[in-house]
Amino acid sequence: MQYYALFVHMIEVGVMGASGYAGRELCRLIAGHPSLSLAFATAHEQRGESLALPGGKSVTFCAADDAPLSRAALVLSALPHGASRPSVEAANAAGARVVDLSSDFRPGHGADGGVPYGLTEVHRDAVRGAKLVANPGCYPTSILLALWPLLASGRLAPGTTIHASAASGVSGAGNSPKRELLFGEVSGNFRAYGVGNSHRHLPEMRATLQHFGADADLLFTPHLLPVTRGILATVTVPVTEIGDDPAALWREHYAGERFIEIAGTPPALSDVTHRNVARIFVQRVAHVRTPTLLILCAIDNLVKGAAGQALQNANLMLGLDEGAGLPV
Amino acid sequence: MQYYALFVHMIEVGVMGASGYAGRELCRLIAGHPSLSLAFATAHEQRGESLALPGGKSVTFCAADDAPLSRAALVLSALPHGASRPSVEAANAAGARVVDLSSDFRPGHGADGGVPYGLTEVHRDAVRGAKLVANPGCYPTSILLALWPLLASGRLAPGTTIHASAASGVSGAGNSPKRELLFGEVSGNFRAYGVGNSHRHLPEMRATLQHFGADADLLFTPHLLPVTRGILATVTVPVTEIGDDPAALWREHYAGERFIEIAGTPPALSDVTHRNVARIFVQRVAHVRTPTLLILCAIDNLVKGAAGQALQNANLMLGLDEGAGLPV
Amino acid sequence: MQYYALFVHMIEVGVMGASGYAGRELCRLIAGHPSLSLAFATAHEQRGESLALPGGKSVTFCAADDAPLSRAALVLSALPHGASRPSVEAANAAGARVVDLSSDFRPGHGADGGVPYGLTEVHRDAVRGAKLVANPGCYPTSILLALWPLLASGRLAPGTTIHASAASGVSGAGNSPKRELLFGEVSGNFRAYGVGNSHRHLPEMRATLQHFGADADLLFTPHLLPVTRGILATVTVPVTEIGDDPAALWREHYAGERFIEIAGTPPALSDVTHRNVARIFVQRVAHVRTPTLLILCAIDNLVKGAAGQALQNANLMLGLDEGAGLPV
Amino acid sequence: MQYYALFVHMIEVGVMGASGYAGRELCRLIAGHPSLSLAFATAHEQRGESLALPGGKSVTFCAADDAPLSRAALVLSALPHGASRPSVEAANAAGARVVDLSSDFRPGHGADGGVPYGLTEVHRDAVRGAKLVANPGCYPTSILLALWPLLASGRLAPGTTIHASAASGVSGAGNSPKRELLFGEVSGNFRAYGVGNSHRHLPEMRATLQHFGADADLLFTPHLLPVTRGILATVTVPVTEIGDDPAALWREHYAGERFIEIAGTPPALSDVTHRNVARIFVQRVAHVRTPTLLILCAIDNLVKGAAGQALQNANLMLGLDEGAGLPV
Repeated sequence: MQYYALFVHMIEVGVMGASGYAGRELCRLIAGHPSLSLAFATAHEQRGESLALPGGKSVTFCAADDAPLSRAALVLSALPHGASRPSVEAANAAGARVVDLSSDFRPGHGADGGVPYGLTEVHRDAVRGAKLVANPGCYPTSILLALWPLLASGRLAPGTTIHASAASGVSGAGNSPKRELLFGEVSGNFRAYGVGNSHRHLPEMRATLQHFGADADLLFTPHLLPVTRGILATVTVPVTEIGDDPAALWREHYAGERFIEIAGTPPALSDVTHRNVARIFVQRVAHVRTPTLLILCAIDNLVKGAAGQALQNANLMLGLDEGAGLPV
Repeated sequence: MQYYALFVHMIEVGVMGASGYAGRELCRLIAGHPSLSLAFATAHEQRGESLALPGGKSVTFCAADDAPLSRAALVLSALPHGASRPSVEAANAAGARVVDLSSDFRPGHGADGGVPYGLTEVHRDAVRGAKLVANPGCYPTSILLALWPLLASGRLAPGTTIHASAASGVSGAGNSPKRELLFGEVSGNFRAYGVGNSHRHLPEMRATLQHFGADADLLFTPHLLPVTRGILATVTVPVTEIGDDPAALWREHYAGERFIEIAGTPPALSDVTHRNVARIFVQRVAHVRTPTLLILCAIDNLVKGAAGQALQNANLMLGLDEGAGLPV
Repeated sequence: MQYYALFVHMIEVGVMGASGYAGRELCRLIAGHPSLSLAFATAHEQRGESLALPGGKSVTFCAADDAPLSRAALVLSALPHGASRPSVEAANAAGARVVDLSSDFRPGHGADGGVPYGLTEVHRDAVRGAKLVANPGCYPTSILLALWPLLASGRLAPGTTIHASAASGVSGAGNSPKRELLFGEVSGNFRAYGVGNSHRHLPEMRATLQHFGADADLLFTPHLLPVTRGILATVTVPVTEIGDDPAALWREHYAGERFIEIAGTPPALSDVTHRNVARIFVQRVAHVRTPTLLILCAIDNLVKGAAGQALQNANLMLGLDEGAGLPV
Repeated sequence: MQYYALFVHMIEVGVMGASGYAGRELCRLIAGHPSLSLAFATAHEQRGESLALPGGKSVTFCAADDAPLSRAALVLSALPHGASRPSVEAANAAGARVVDLSSDFRPGHGADGGVPYGLTEVHRDAVRGAKLVANPGCYPTSILLALWPLLASGRLAPGTTIHASAASGVSGAGNSPKRELLFGEVSGNFRAYGVGNSHRHLPEMRATLQHFGADADLLFTPHLLPVTRGILATVTVPVTEIGDDPAALWREHYAGERFIEIAGTPPALSDVTHRNVARIFVQRVAHVRTPTLLILCAIDNLVKGAAGQALQNANLMLGLDEGAGLPV
């Protein structure tokens, strides 16, 4: 048994908006990444506070103005929706590539035609080499990965409605103190919100359906689960035809994808938490006249639905191995 | 201030299959009922064990063969599906009226044309005076109460599909020790089951749709929540037309119903747990071409979805006030 | 079967500080009380909001200044510690008796020699007829009810230390939005707080020990449980002697008490939640040289530990049956 | 940036009793270990079932008789207490070193004078080179690591009693289906068990106190928490003297230990879950006559309290870096 010294050049990256659940997850994943080191982590209200990281490391949050932007080859922004744009543009102007986790640059949110939508498995080529990538929302990640093989192959029944009922852990709602997010309010409870197609993740899903030329409506109902992390999307889709093995289309489209699992049984949140994977199950629905598929997709909303996918995109943008530092 | 002595004749009732979650809830509700007293509670494996009841009372489970059937004016059976029929018939033969909480006599489960389906608000007249009532399943209670105004008024868009995605607390799965129901497996978790229209509650819902002449399919996906009790049904329905106030139809159909609440905001499980109510919210869905309603219905699966509705039916069958002993 | 009309004079009571967990529990218990009606419920920040109550009732919170104090025969104050005193004195001045749930008038908190400490089973005679009663804290209720038979009988080993390690559900910390009380922080978690004898409930326990002439120190460590309600106190006490049946002393002292249960097995929170009882278990400790007893006491922190005990005291002060309206 | 190929000889190890929570954790840690590979994993009832492992790996459980013992340089046994001894002896006889996670060879459990007790930080030298190591119980790990600096320095007040009140997540009770471990029984609940010094972890703690010549009794009360993993031990100890900085003794004794953290605030379970660390907090107790310390120690019962510490010991026995493959 012989060991060689291994010198690896570490690329410096920064995190903006690091004190929320997604921002903290970003810092933790970077701390365990073989080729990245954390140049800074900004957090306005919690500047001066320390965050413990794996391997005995830690980082102290700094104010946005004190971030050494020029040191970072890439910046990941977990700033709130609506507040991210100026900081993202400043980071780009300082020469850093940016992955933005807010909705500010996502499709359906205004006139940013040129910004790739970082649903990595779908838009990999556009992400590679991009200066700025709009990281998808957590719900859209689960629902669009469930639908993509149908969208790409044109097998959606035209003029129909896709139903997506999804449930998310509370970390998706952030860690700002609100009464409705207290343990006493969430524990033992369950409720829908953003009902009637009013959730802010709808536009990017509708824009993506349109991008693929899908002639279908989407009816999306999110729910709040009494769990910390994880999303399960329950999607039903009228299709033009169903063969004997409906999951075959998914296995084919996702062949070779290391972060997509096609499961033989309905996925549970516990199958995917703390992992950068989407676990998908497909089944024909019985007792309905219209040929219909049930597609279940489980992800960790903080990993594949946020920080993990953001790093997957960052890896591509930096020319690193796409899966570096990502838990599977 | 003057008090009168109040002598009330207590009617004796029995519970069969009393050791499960629904059976225990029945015993507790009977113990607090102003006109009922508990004659016996059977439980095969747990015979000899005591169950503490409100008001400092308790009951000791007896073997089925030791139940004094002849003492009971009415028997509530919470025996398992498939095992209830012989005991129910024996109780009827001994002269007791019966409310059966299993699926054995429900519509869609074989040739029991004459047994009323105890969805109280819908079939009240048939329940009153019946010798045997088939108490609905917990999921069907929530979904059919959500749909009834549409079914009764014929406003379902013909040839379409009703989507019902529902989530239940674990008490719906009973208290027999199974690995999948351990705290370590359920806590922090969420998953679908009975997928692809394979759940055993589907037949009674399909039979009820058919009973009302509805030309619609039903796509039902149940999920297991990490909570002890409660069901939320998220139902979407294409309809022939929607007025400015879609909830008006529900307020009208359920006017005067003390166990139905038409809510102005999406209901949470915490609004209904430990109560014999169904809380319903109705809203038009935006961004879809087909006029579609979202209907949310929350119940406590053990109360309005099982023991509470059973007692509501029992009250009617015994000529008592329908709401006697029922928590609102 | 014959019914008599029953006319009962309802006594009006008010609740101050009604929007917190204890205040809401007070309103709910009063709504179900056979002889009390709710004259008003104050809540500064949430004035104008409605609270649903059992039996289809509801109450709208009013500002403190708008409370019709003169209508209330008795006021229950769930105002915060330190803020209760002026309001309590105003209510007393307006002619209402008062049960104060804050620590402002409790023993050990300053010079209020005349205010009875409302540990009902211990100070019943002083409570009856009092104009103002200081309702005990939740932890002190569980720990002092566990200890009282030893205190009253003088069997504490002199010069020793009583160890009380206790754990409470989060409702004890109130429903003001704080990050440390978010579901994402509490779920799956457990921690001690108020460590090293620094918790604000210590003074009233020390004062009560002194009141009974106990020559013993108290070492109290509270913990925060990931549950909504319930307290379990684990108390160990060196004693002068232990007979063959150590629980006999507790059965004797609490004989006839309807809100005290002496259990044969260690109590669980689920034995006592939503009930106005203290469930106590006593056992000799093996493998120690000093004769030592383990005493476990479980209560619902919001009922026997707050609102329930407050109503128990209110019943006494108003000459009603002590247990009226209290869930057992 | 230049990469070298790195060839590492992987040492084969086996896991016996791999289907329980500790056994599964062992398999997962081995799958992520840089120098170990999993030769086999036995599970009697679940033979033939597959366990997914990190990095896309998996292992299929085999029957005990089919385990290729001779291939393994070391075997980790997570077999039940009382059932481990014969399998451990067979593995030793086949030439494998063994870390046994059961209580069969621990101090206080009979005449196995020669087997080192694998509390790594305390008995590191005895572990290194041992053929068989008895891995400590989860509660003893937390309590003895809290106490060790006092034991080693002889500062326990003589003739006194150490109080250890501890609470554990349900994974400590294993994953065999039992009613008391169902979600519906554990959720929202909390209770003590093994009360009065009757828990099976007491003997090894008493034996360790005796080993260090401590003249003190131990009073240990375990509790069941509604969480999946984690233990918090709340320990109070009369001591001979306390300086201004009571934690200094712990910092000194544990200097250089990478798996021990001396914290400045009370540790929470969330600080240690999924990590192989013990996080310790020390504070002087106020308002007591006897100089007394409060020591809090949090661990993950499945990692530092079981599988992680077992691998820490295995690393030492195999001459590897003590921390290889262990999450900090």
